[in-house]
Amino acid sequence: MKTVTSVAVFCFKPMKFERPTYLLNPDICKSNIRTMAARASRSGVIFRPHFKTHQSLVIGRWFREAGVSKITVSSLAAARYFASDGWTDITVAFPVNLREIGLINELASHVRIGLLIEHPDVALELEKNLKFPVDVYIKIDTGYHRTGLSEDEMPVIRQLTDLISGSSLLNLKGLLTHAGHTYGASTRDQVNEIYLSSTRILNEVRKNIGTAGEGLLLSYGDTPSCSIVEDFSNIDEIRPGNFIFYDLMQFVAGSCDFSQVAGVVVCPVVAVHASRNQAVLYGGAIHLSKEFLIIDGRRIYGQVVEMDDNKWGNPIPGAYLVSLSQEHGILEGGDHIINELRPGMTVGIIPVHSCLTANLLQGYQMTDGGDGDYFLGK
Amino acid sequence: MKTVTSVAVFCFKPMKFERPTYLLNPDICKSNIRTMAARASRSGVIFRPHFKTHQSLVIGRWFREAGVSKITVSSLAAARYFASDGWTDITVAFPVNLREIGLINELASHVRIGLLIEHPDVALELEKNLKFPVDVYIKIDTGYHRTGLSEDEMPVIRQLTDLISGSSLLNLKGLLTHAGHTYGASTRDQVNEIYLSSTRILNEVRKNIGTAGEGLLLSYGDTPSCSIVEDFSNIDEIRPGNFIFYDLMQFVAGSCDFSQVAGVVVCPVVAVHASRNQAVLYGGAIHLSKEFLIIDGRRIYGQVVEMDDNKWGNPIPGAYLVSLSQEHGILEGGDHIINELRPGMTVGIIPVHSCLTANLLQGYQMTDGGDGDYFLGK
Repeated sequence: MKTVTSVAVFCFKPMKFERPTYLLNPDICKSNIRTMAARASRSGVIFRPHFKTHQSLVIGRWFREAGVSKITVSSLAAARYFASDGWTDITVAFPVNLREIGLINELASHVRIGLLIEHPDVALELEKNLKFPVDVYIKIDTGYHRTGLSEDEMPVIRQLTDLISGSSLLNLKGLLTHAGHTYGASTRDQVNEIYLSSTRILNEVRKNIGTAGEGLLLSYGDTPSCSIVEDFSNIDEIRPGNFIFYDLMQFVAGSCDFSQVAGVVVCPVVAVHASRNQAVLYGGAIHLSKEFLIIDGRRIYGQVVEMDDNKWGNPIPGAYLVSLSQEHGILEGGDHIINELRPGMTVGIIPVHSCLTANLLQGYQMTDGGDGDYFLGK
Repeated sequence: MKTVTSVAVFCFKPMKFERPTYLLNPDICKSNIRTMAARASRSGVIFRPHFKTHQSLVIGRWFREAGVSKITVSSLAAARYFASDGWTDITVAFPVNLREIGLINELASHVRIGLLIEHPDVALELEKNLKFPVDVYIKIDTGYHRTGLSEDEMPVIRQLTDLISGSSLLNLKGLLTHAGHTYGASTRDQVNEIYLSSTRILNEVRKNIGTAGEGLLLSYGDTPSCSIVEDFSNIDEIRPGNFIFYDLMQFVAGSCDFSQVAGVVVCPVVAVHASRNQAVLYGGAIHLSKEFLIIDGRRIYGQVVEMDDNKWGNPIPGAYLVSLSQEHGILEGGDHIINELRPGMTVGIIPVHSCLTANLLQGYQMTDGGDGDYFLGK
């Protein structure tokens, strides 16, 4: 057993990382932005990044510096947040919540706002209650089966295009899909196949709409596709979001390598149980979320990485978070890990799902010393 | 298909529940407090409720009105929050985070603070860095295997009692356990058995400590045990928390009936897909958490209840949330449910795990019109 002195070295230096902290490397974030912008540019498509992962004005500005002017968000409240920082062309990639008609009008009064419709009632209610024009996308289900109208529902799609075309304030802009089923793919080939079948459906639906479909923009989401597919020339716009940070899920899906993972959650060690090769971290479900991956038949809630001060290195093979409760995270690893840990030290964890983790931690510490805001409203 | 008029009735009344909202019935909360206080009182044990579920000053005051003066929290930051509202006897039921020594000293300077220790290094570091006295509990593992020392680790337990007894600022107060394995029990008999074996271990450990163990208080947690066991006379203190709201997990575990569930999450409907008996709610992983139960072989993220204005009624059989992503919740039910739903309506959901849901929604709407705060720090 190490002496207590060794703990003190880690513990009682000026206290960084007192509590679970999302530590981000801005250089990796900016590199991820440049890489994705270049992918869009090579295919000549609009790059409308999704801001639902970072939800940060600070990070939003990094996109602006890279030439981005059109963005995607996942709630009207987030649209208001980014509009407050000068973003003026915002797609809310979530079916219209009619109960927020007041906020829709507030936004539409001063920014170009894009809304998703998949139900005729919503078009009718908007037409009745809008005070300013909005862009409208019809949400198409290309196989994920979460939201959207499928290619088998052409009568409803045509009913919608008729309603929207006949409206004075709804500007029919395009067809939009989120091919979320790429998250379940296990190879890059499968991701490519999903991309091809999804974009084929988008193109078919546009064709089948007839005259009203002419000129409609085809907008496509999801980080796995946008990270892996080389040629987007059969669509008009991509909306990836998670790629700004990536995470363990994206690594396992083949969307990135570890050098592209832009953040780890730094967690204090609060207990060590060598007898069962476990340590207890201050870092639980309210910090990392209960999202898990199955790795080697076990539920995994995070991957332990090497840490040195505020830099992280490679993943430590076989060292994972294997259980989470409200504040507790249970780290399991071999003797070589557990015997090094003492209460008061910190451990770096690559989260399974960075979007949910960022939402829970509500802010960032940057490796260069800066802080990052996070949109708190939900 | 219903006419659009029927949507308008739900949609464009003065807008309550614009976004996912934790709707609480204060009468049920207060009844749950009285019931639990009476259970503690019947056995003559201290009632030190855990505030990690509600994390609310408003709700904390309901406990104070019921005669509670000693509380439990799960983080030092939450201790500071409740201390700010006049709570002066607070146990932090989480292993000491040495990196927050500054906050420990701040709290110990003006309130009676109880800390959990399970590692000799922690006792030594506290003794070195504390400026004010604190109460100390040794955390005992009675079978949950998350944190704590087991009865097989008597040498470490005795080392700890020696260290603490020899300290000037650590006041050895008791032995504390959280029998979280009751959450996995499927019958009330199993919960009773876990209670009996856990409290037998606590008593044995106290006896085996020898002289230093005499007079140590035995403190016991977990809502299933505290809701089901009738006689606590072999321990000194109970620390249940979840019972203030209960939830679907507790109902399934047999800790409560539906009339004791104090809150539902009200979610706007944003899309309806009759072809697959599904509706899409504004209410996802960032509102409800990804905690799930397996019911009839499926992952279930929430139970749909009847709603009438801001009152909820019985669960609707077979109507569940079956999938969650960041903002989306997928409700599945029979024709009788789905055919009634339109975008703009709202649906009530009993969450699987109220602690995580409250943490995500960060506040409450009371059925009597009041608001509830939520501690935001993590």
